Amino acid sequence: MASSSPSLTLSQALLARTTSFCSSNLSSADHVSLSSVSMPTFSGLKSKSSLSSSTSSFSCKPIHYSGSRRWANSIRAVAAEKVDKTTEASLVEKSVNTIRFLAIDAVEKANVGHPGMPMGCAPIGHVIYDEVMKYNPKNPKWFNRDRFLLSAGHGCMLHYALLYLAGYDSIKEEDLKNFRQWGSKTPGHPENFVTSGIEVTTGPLGQGFANAVGLTLAEKHLAARFNKPGHEIVDHYTYCIMGDGCQMEGVANEAASLAGHWGLGKLIAFYDDNHISIDGDTQIAFTESVEARFEGLGWHVIWVKNGNNGYDEIRAAIKEAKAIKDRPTLIKVTTTIGYGSPNKANSYSAHGSALGAKEVEATRKNLGWPYEPFHVPEDVRKHWSRHIAEGAALEAEWNAKFAEYEKRYKEEAAELKSIINGELPDGWEKALPTYTPESPADATRNLSQQNLNALAKVLPGLLGGSADLASSNMTLLKMFGDFQRDTPEERNVRFGVREHGMGAICNGIAHHSPGLVPYCATFFVFTDYMRAAIRISALSEAGIIYVMTHDSIGLGEDGPTHQPIEHLASFRAMPNILMLRPADGNETAGAYRVAVLNRKRPSILALSRQKLPNLPGTSVEGVEKGGYIISDNSAGNKPDVILIGTGSELEIAAKAADDLRKEGKTVRVVSLVCWELFDKQSDDHKESVLPAAVSARVSIEAGSTFGWQKIVGSKGKAIGIDRFGASAPAGRLYKEFGITKEAVIAAAKEVS
Amino acid sequence: MASSSPSLTLSQALLARTTSFCSSNLSSADHVSLSSVSMPTFSGLKSKSSLSSSTSSFSCKPIHYSGSRRWANSIRAVAAEKVDKTTEASLVEKSVNTIRFLAIDAVEKANVGHPGMPMGCAPIGHVIYDEVMKYNPKNPKWFNRDRFLLSAGHGCMLHYALLYLAGYDSIKEEDLKNFRQWGSKTPGHPENFVTSGIEVTTGPLGQGFANAVGLTLAEKHLAARFNKPGHEIVDHYTYCIMGDGCQMEGVANEAASLAGHWGLGKLIAFYDDNHISIDGDTQIAFTESVEARFEGLGWHVIWVKNGNNGYDEIRAAIKEAKAIKDRPTLIKVTTTIGYGSPNKANSYSAHGSALGAKEVEATRKNLGWPYEPFHVPEDVRKHWSRHIAEGAALEAEWNAKFAEYEKRYKEEAAELKSIINGELPDGWEKALPTYTPESPADATRNLSQQNLNALAKVLPGLLGGSADLASSNMTLLKMFGDFQRDTPEERNVRFGVREHGMGAICNGIAHHSPGLVPYCATFFVFTDYMRAAIRISALSEAGIIYVMTHDSIGLGEDGPTHQPIEHLASFRAMPNILMLRPADGNETAGAYRVAVLNRKRPSILALSRQKLPNLPGTSVEGVEKGGYIISDNSAGNKPDVILIGTGSELEIAAKAADDLRKEGKTVRVVSLVCWELFDKQSDDHKESVLPAAVSARVSIEAGSTFGWQKIVGSKGKAIGIDRFGASAPAGRLYKEFGITKEAVIAAAKEVS
Repeated sequence: MASSSPSLTLSQALLARTTSFCSSNLSSADHVSLSSVSMPTFSGLKSKSSLSSSTSSFSCKPIHYSGSRRWANSIRAVAAEKVDKTTEASLVEKSVNTIRFLAIDAVEKANVGHPGMPMGCAPIGHVIYDEVMKYNPKNPKWFNRDRFLLSAGHGCMLHYALLYLAGYDSIKEEDLKNFRQWGSKTPGHPENFVTSGIEVTTGPLGQGFANAVGLTLAEKHLAARFNKPGHEIVDHYTYCIMGDGCQMEGVANEAASLAGHWGLGKLIAFYDDNHISIDGDTQIAFTESVEARFEGLGWHVIWVKNGNNGYDEIRAAIKEAKAIKDRPTLIKVTTTIGYGSPNKANSYSAHGSALGAKEVEATRKNLGWPYEPFHVPEDVRKHWSRHIAEGAALEAEWNAKFAEYEKRYKEEAAELKSIINGELPDGWEKALPTYTPESPADATRNLSQQNLNALAKVLPGLLGGSADLASSNMTLLKMFGDFQRDTPEERNVRFGVREHGMGAICNGIAHHSPGLVPYCATFFVFTDYMRAAIRISALSEAGIIYVMTHDSIGLGEDGPTHQPIEHLASFRAMPNILMLRPADGNETAGAYRVAVLNRKRPSILALSRQKLPNLPGTSVEGVEKGGYIISDNSAGNKPDVILIGTGSELEIAAKAADDLRKEGKTVRVVSLVCWELFDKQSDDHKESVLPAAVSARVSIEAGSTFGWQKIVGSKGKAIGIDRFGASAPAGRLYKEFGITKEAVIAAAKEVS
Repeated sequence: MASSSPSLTLSQALLARTTSFCSSNLSSADHVSLSSVSMPTFSGLKSKSSLSSSTSSFSCKPIHYSGSRRWANSIRAVAAEKVDKTTEASLVEKSVNTIRFLAIDAVEKANVGHPGMPMGCAPIGHVIYDEVMKYNPKNPKWFNRDRFLLSAGHGCMLHYALLYLAGYDSIKEEDLKNFRQWGSKTPGHPENFVTSGIEVTTGPLGQGFANAVGLTLAEKHLAARFNKPGHEIVDHYTYCIMGDGCQMEGVANEAASLAGHWGLGKLIAFYDDNHISIDGDTQIAFTESVEARFEGLGWHVIWVKNGNNGYDEIRAAIKEAKAIKDRPTLIKVTTTIGYGSPNKANSYSAHGSALGAKEVEATRKNLGWPYEPFHVPEDVRKHWSRHIAEGAALEAEWNAKFAEYEKRYKEEAAELKSIINGELPDGWEKALPTYTPESPADATRNLSQQNLNALAKVLPGLLGGSADLASSNMTLLKMFGDFQRDTPEERNVRFGVREHGMGAICNGIAHHSPGLVPYCATFFVFTDYMRAAIRISALSEAGIIYVMTHDSIGLGEDGPTHQPIEHLASFRAMPNILMLRPADGNETAGAYRVAVLNRKRPSILALSRQKLPNLPGTSVEGVEKGGYIISDNSAGNKPDVILIGTGSELEIAAKAADDLRKEGKTVRVVSLVCWELFDKQSDDHKESVLPAAVSARVSIEAGSTFGWQKIVGSKGKAIGIDRFGASAPAGRLYKEFGITKEAVIAAAKEVS
């Protein structure tokens, strides 16, 4: 009945879809001619139990265009199995409706938000948080907790309702009533830095799913490193709910491909298959077979046909997923968005707006919900209250286990503890290499590799890799092998050409444990591919180290597609991120020092492909101040001119200064390696470096001049590149674009 | 023989792979025990013909990890069919080796580049350009040509060699010798704006494939609109070569999903399955079943097992692909990177560096190539020379066809011509709506919709849509239906939640015909997802209109994940793009005027979610100047203070001016709607708007202040937001972040 011939028009197909959805809400006894069903019908609380233990007798299979239709039957729908049920069905239903109405009521009070997703996914949410997950509400950061991520972050009221019912201190009734208000614990999308119990910041679609891959990677890595026979001290699952939107995003496919490659068996992702996206039925833009794709990506796929009240199906699917150890599982759960709303269910109108008082009333009636807004029935509250004691017991049990482990494996326990607590080992920074002007000239990407390998010896949580450019980005940790399916204890992560997925996975790793220090790498220009993930690093306070090489036209012949121009400026404008462009060995070491210390602020290191000399006057301490003097032949803080450079152009500034000094000028050379750090310095320091009285300033940087006016002032001159690059040897490009000593000297004479 | 048990170590698997690749280069007669084969062996020119007509007797199947291994046999490998062969096998081989050595020699001379891909893909390239494609080398822009895109853009020497052999004027021997040099026609990655015959700019992986989807969409759309029974005047294929890297990128999956959804039967994508990426064998990061994924995405998939010399297999696959009308085809072609190089084939070392004189010599010997560098054997040259006459004939035939069409369908022919030539209809701009201060306040996203719908009536090439936010971005063209598989003549494109794919597809549409004016839309913050595609718009000179709504904290409750902060600055720093932030109706119309006129420069329109009043003084002409005065009560170009705003904050500046004027100040209010346009104005205009003598300046914009110092100067003050936003009602956010009239007034008093 639900199959469609390719000759169906779109509108016919949409109608067929609507009716096919309706059918899943009818009991077998209610089976009616489909032609008579024109609107979704909900049978309400009372009749649900008759549906909960059997698969609907007629299929709820979505209609696909012919292109992918043949896959529709290839995935086995999960059969409802007999599983241990500890809660009677009616109480489950009541709990689920509590979740639904908490979401409905909070959105209604805010008069803005997304009720539809929580209404549709409440059953999944209930099963996960009430029956399956291990967590301790009173210690949301308990290390061995199962992790849950709402990749469909707009449905955050689902998560807030669950945290509230489970007894987390972060969400009280008051907070639900303050949904989406200034200063509340319940912002419009989940924010880990605001609300305990939220693992990452989600909302931008696909990110949360990729974060979940990162969290699962972290678990697999730590388990492989630290577990011992009989001592499974790292042992948890990562759950995630993703929607149709997440499925469409490329970043999710990148992360899914890696999860399959790595065989992340402890990742269980629910796909909320509600067929509604903002523009309407997903048929208008999304007719692929997600199942076939995920199977191709190496996942185990299960289809729960009745996600609206097929609790046993959901339970059985989770059980099956857990039994599959060698690959991640996607549980496609067909749900109805806005389930329970008589007039808005299964339509876009339930997605992103409050239902409205009238429809809320109708929904209350339809689902048999006689309570006031925000009410949690006593039996539901009592039922959920056990999680506080259970969670405490789970943690206590684990603590005892850990104590045992600590006795037997003292060293490993100490290392794991440092990862759990995020404490850097004493004196770690002494491992960083030092350089003198006599040290051989080298590319900062190579110097970066020296730093990474030095850090690998002292930072137990350092792990990472490149998006298929390890040998160009110079990111391999030589003392370790590759993190792979069968060698997850290793620390070189091979991300393939998946920059966006890489960044989002690193966010997940960082948020798994504070002592994990993920780094990742590509060419600087390709931050464009992963900018959404980098922004989440900054927003969610994940101290990722972004190792970005080939940072200017200095990369030469690859040409303008590969040459960053506007990228330094674009990150300097981004909040809570450190954009570092070291000039040589000491500055590279300084950049790593800064990056490692900033565990709640991502750092981007822009590094050269080409060799650079070690300059007199550069220092780690200087980098920590963001901007500092590397040479000066003036007195009284009043040079004739100040030359300011970053990265590979600091050398040019230094050479220009030499020449100008020979002509009798007093010249200061300033390295402005990190604008954000310089901004944070005292006025005294800033004045000591860039005195207000000296307006004769020239900057040089092989990138956009955008933003440099702040530094050089109206009377100064910024030398840079405000066009795209070109394909030619680097030396030629520097000359053609005027990034030269001669240009600096000319500008200096002009302004001074 | 090529199957591996999951217990193989990675290094064992890699070894097995190497040997399995070797085997495909041996004729059946040469079948030897694999254990005795430890290095790739190439049998050279002479023995190739024995292989060209049959599938190798033993499989060249790649080894996959267990996760996806079961898919390896599910895709039927194409059987070599009897097809018309017009060229004797030895000449084909010679032509292919010519292509290989042109690439080898050019890279060698430049001493930098990517020889491996052209060496492996030369057979595909030969078959496409010599046997299959319709084009006219002397008119690379001939409208009805087949399009070819090298998504694996680093292999550009393949394309340059093909254009050279085919007789394109853009590539002469001299150009090949100038590969990757300043000012050459042969840059390090293909650049359409440099080299005729290159359709788009590729290199950043995955983009070219997504562009190909856009080109095919354009063909399907125009064919549906303009073809008449017996008059198939729009009728061409789009070919594309993508590599493993392209396959891994999320943008490619997004575009592939849409291509399958739309049933783009005239898209034929070759997947260069060489199993080598920069970090080594793809086994380390890429073990999914590409075939299963593409089948799931609704594609027809064919596997050519012997891409190194299985010409008949390649021909048969193309024939089969053309026979499949209702879906795109992926032809997976298993090749050997660096084919022919005795010591570097099938390894990373052939990917991104010159082979080196010694290895070039060894390769010449191995492939039996006695010629000097850059030599094209006379018989090969003669063979290819026919394309000039053939191409001219193809075009002439089409011209005759078009003349017939024009006679019968005058109006349609005129419209199609305007799309082909890129001429905007006379007086099109009169369609743009106008507003007065009395017009009702409205969100600029709604005003944008009025403009789009007005333009839809007059611009035959306008088409586009949103990434699943049509009803938020307000982008639907009401007079048209949806572009879909069965309604391709319509103009509302439903991209789904695939921002990156959307941008790249629009680039393809724009480069199909100069008169196509694609627009696309999402929330402004999600430009982060598609920035790589936007940059390609700017670099490749594609005048896309990016309709970006919800452009500040003014979107309110969705919170910081959805609130752009640094985005205006980040695009102001990007070359060749216009970042427009209109304040009201007239400015929105002006922004559209600018966007439509700039066919070689993309425009981003940042538009408000919230209502804004129509301000006295705004104008279309003002927008065209980028910055202009909307009100002023001073004389002699010397106001006490200049207040500068953009978009939704221009209203705040205007209100602050009113108050300040009441206090007796002379105040100028400037709208700086587009910095790039303002930068291009005469010094006189700039001085008339922002006189150097007036340093009392205050700017207000609900975004990062980064870059504003250029406008307000050292003594001015920039009001903005240099932190992430928050979830709360918009009014509250403006107040909390100090984006208020009061703040402007206070700052004005401070600076003046």
